[in-house]
Amino acid sequence: MSIRIGILGYGNLGKGVELAVAASPDMELVAVFTRRDPSSLSIKTAGVPVVSVNDVADYKDKIDVMILCGGSATDLPVQTPQYAKMFNVVDSFDTHARIPEHFANVDAAAKEAGNVAVISCGWDPGMFSLARVYSNAILPDGKDYTFWGKGVSQGHSDAIRRIKGVKNAKQYTIPVESALEAVRSGKNPELSTRDKHTRECFVVLEDGADAAAVEKEIKEMPNYFADYDTTVHFISEEELLKNHSGMAHGGFVFRSGKTGADKEHNHIIEYSLKLDSNPEFTTSVLVAVARAAYKMHAEGAKGCKTMLDIPPAMLSDKTPEELRSHLL
Amino acid sequence: MSIRIGILGYGNLGKGVELAVAASPDMELVAVFTRRDPSSLSIKTAGVPVVSVNDVADYKDKIDVMILCGGSATDLPVQTPQYAKMFNVVDSFDTHARIPEHFANVDAAAKEAGNVAVISCGWDPGMFSLARVYSNAILPDGKDYTFWGKGVSQGHSDAIRRIKGVKNAKQYTIPVESALEAVRSGKNPELSTRDKHTRECFVVLEDGADAAAVEKEIKEMPNYFADYDTTVHFISEEELLKNHSGMAHGGFVFRSGKTGADKEHNHIIEYSLKLDSNPEFTTSVLVAVARAAYKMHAEGAKGCKTMLDIPPAMLSDKTPEELRSHLL
Repeated sequence: MSIRIGILGYGNLGKGVELAVAASPDMELVAVFTRRDPSSLSIKTAGVPVVSVNDVADYKDKIDVMILCGGSATDLPVQTPQYAKMFNVVDSFDTHARIPEHFANVDAAAKEAGNVAVISCGWDPGMFSLARVYSNAILPDGKDYTFWGKGVSQGHSDAIRRIKGVKNAKQYTIPVESALEAVRSGKNPELSTRDKHTRECFVVLEDGADAAAVEKEIKEMPNYFADYDTTVHFISEEELLKNHSGMAHGGFVFRSGKTGADKEHNHIIEYSLKLDSNPEFTTSVLVAVARAAYKMHAEGAKGCKTMLDIPPAMLSDKTPEELRSHLL
Repeated sequence: MSIRIGILGYGNLGKGVELAVAASPDMELVAVFTRRDPSSLSIKTAGVPVVSVNDVADYKDKIDVMILCGGSATDLPVQTPQYAKMFNVVDSFDTHARIPEHFANVDAAAKEAGNVAVISCGWDPGMFSLARVYSNAILPDGKDYTFWGKGVSQGHSDAIRRIKGVKNAKQYTIPVESALEAVRSGKNPELSTRDKHTRECFVVLEDGADAAAVEKEIKEMPNYFADYDTTVHFISEEELLKNHSGMAHGGFVFRSGKTGADKEHNHIIEYSLKLDSNPEFTTSVLVAVARAAYKMHAEGAKGCKTMLDIPPAMLSDKTPEELRSHLL
């Protein structure tokens, strides 16, 4: 028997979930739900209906886990509590500061309905959170370091696009190699914001815009760029589309911690990701979590969870016996 | 209220557990149990008794989790089922091929007594197993690579010491840098045993032993050395003790996997450890797992578990709210 999956939202995340479900022999895609006119949407999986979100209640007993593929800014704060009343759900809510509030809202809805809702799945929050929690539990006396990149930051690219005279832009966050090496070597450095990451911007100007003024405005923008070493390149829109449309990303989580009677032993735990496609990796995580949500619900769990609450074996389609024999 | 910990066995692991418990504010060490004459043993923690294993039953209601610090070859296959009848237990059983058998024996004993027993904790099996299970669940279409070192392999050092004419020896397992780089770059190489690791031996000869014969015997030893590029250095016992008594170790777990409609995107997950003290890191894991075993038992769990069955949050001494606010 397959785990019956629904997808709500068909942007980059929805498309990635569709691919990841197709690659999971224990799952089947039941329907894709959209706020758009369903007839305007063509999906990859043959024979699977595209349904208006207005009709989602019809699928209450036909879907085991609904994977919510909306954005964190405005979609998920509303959608996750709303759909947790009807389905087991999984989301990728990634506004770190608002996780406690989101958790509380989703928990109330999911508990009342007897469903499992897993929030904030992906790689950060998600796999990077797991790396931090495991390594903090093992090495309580230590320091955490998280680096992101090289990859495009959507928020920073948007900030540049809001500048007058800018037609289009992409911004790469790049970890500083010497900082990575200092952490890796066990030096436990104190690193400022500027020490950890540089920012590289590729900018397409509107006709007649003042390049020097735009560059100055970028480099001096508070929070986004002022605290970083920032490089600005002006390029044509053609070059931007050709060379800067990729969705690669990644990053590094370190814990450097001490043990021993005199704290004489240092240990470095490093977890890193190098991803050709940020959305496809994120959705691969979402789909594994959907499997776990299904199993947890079958065991009687309800309410809001995060990946920190999921026994790792539940993410796998292998039996506990297979995991113990082959991967333990 | 503290989690009351017992230590059974006071070698490198027992001493490491003692240090890790001392570094955990939510735990207290109740007693160290030994097969030796208790009066012959002096431990670091003031006020904690050293007790003969013969009297362990007296502590049945005084200890929440007993951490078993024996060896995998002969101690744990007997001790873990035996003490799981009396206590929640944690062990570091690391003979991969015998894990299913060990699991079955421990599971029967722990279930009958209503205790939780977590086996095969440490870094491999343990943290490396977690890295493999998570990344296999997320990237089902991919390849696993595990590298060990640089560090001393006890089994290989022992094998050299059994050769006639050898007085003492240490053997380092060293990952091949070019193989690591090939995996890290996403080339998905096919790697033979020889491609992945080299072996470096530091050997002290008995007086009058034939160095060339010893070197030949090492390099041609089946399973242990014949399939590897092996280097042999003859040194004095003084130099061996001075420069090769460290217990550093480490290693790397990679998953390289593909996603996309045409499998056009590659993703690399890398988990690595660089440890100044192999036993102290292993025991830091054991102690975090003991915390989880205590919590799982309090929630009504019983039987044999592995780290694959433990929700990561349970390893931490922080509350779920703290974890969501600060580490998620």
